[in-house]
Amino acid sequence: MKKLYLLPLLLATTLPLVAQTYLGKQKDIDQILENIGKFSASVVAGDYDKIAAAYTEDGKIFPNRRDIIGGRAAVRQYWVLPEGVRTITHKITPVEIKVRGREAYDYGYYEGTTRRANGEEVSWRGKYVIIWRKVGKEWKIYLDIWNSIDG
Amino acid sequence: MKKLYLLPLLLATTLPLVAQTYLGKQKDIDQILENIGKFSASVVAGDYDKIAAAYTEDGKIFPNRRDIIGGRAAVRQYWVLPEGVRTITHKITPVEIKVRGREAYDYGYYEGTTRRANGEEVSWRGKYVIIWRKVGKEWKIYLDIWNSIDG
Repeated sequence: MKKLYLLPLLLATTLPLVAQTYLGKQKDIDQILENIGKFSASVVAGDYDKIAAAYTEDGKIFPNRRDIIGGRAAVRQYWVLPEGVRTITHKITPVEIKVRGREAYDYGYYEGTTRRANGEEVSWRGKYVIIWRKVGKEWKIYLDIWNSIDG
Repeated sequence: MKKLYLLPLLLATTLPLVAQTYLGKQKDIDQILENIGKFSASVVAGDYDKIAAAYTEDGKIFPNRRDIIGGRAAVRQYWVLPEGVRTITHKITPVEIKVRGREAYDYGYYEGTTRRANGEEVSWRGKYVIIWRKVGKEWKIYLDIWNSIDG
């Protein structure tokens, strides 16, 4: 019987802290989840072309204290970090993804760490809403809005 | 010919500054636009019950520097202003509304003025993304995220 006692603990440590709801065809959900992972990888790699390619041609971002920024070139420019600054970690945790045809909404949390030019590391976390759009066979970000939790 | 010269000026002063795109059945678009107007009116009236009723029962708001706030009671509480503080003006200008079945996304701008307890008036403006959901015959706000442009 000893093993049974371990089960709740095991579940508690391996399940995500946030319940996740994914509604839509598995294939669509899988590609959106894959794209979310790739987006974080591109940010950490500082691969601005891949970051920009994650958005639709007319994709729009809504950064705090700025106007809406639309179009891939402008969106790419937003993501370019100043010389010497790097994103060390970046993680997105979707809470809910709902696909309807060739569009989807997605909301959840993001977190990460930035290393400043002076070597100082700063952690941040926030929440987001994304509107995804299927372009050909690819899911792309059409609207991307977020704000912080802590800072 | 004199009148022709006036036409561009007339158009420039009467057309909205932002192109607006509404996609969906006219009936749905009309109700969403009406609800947007009513929401601003409820905020200015300080009618917290009406503000809360604009959201779905499981509606969620994403205020800056806070966690996601979910459920009508918690959403209502968020909107309650401190004693003596009032919202004097509140205006929402949707840029794009797209209805798909019983859901819609909507993004655009908001602006307003708050009168503080000491009588000082503060203006603010920002941008937002809303996910609307049709509940019975009524369009309600399911997700509501925003952040500032200036401040």
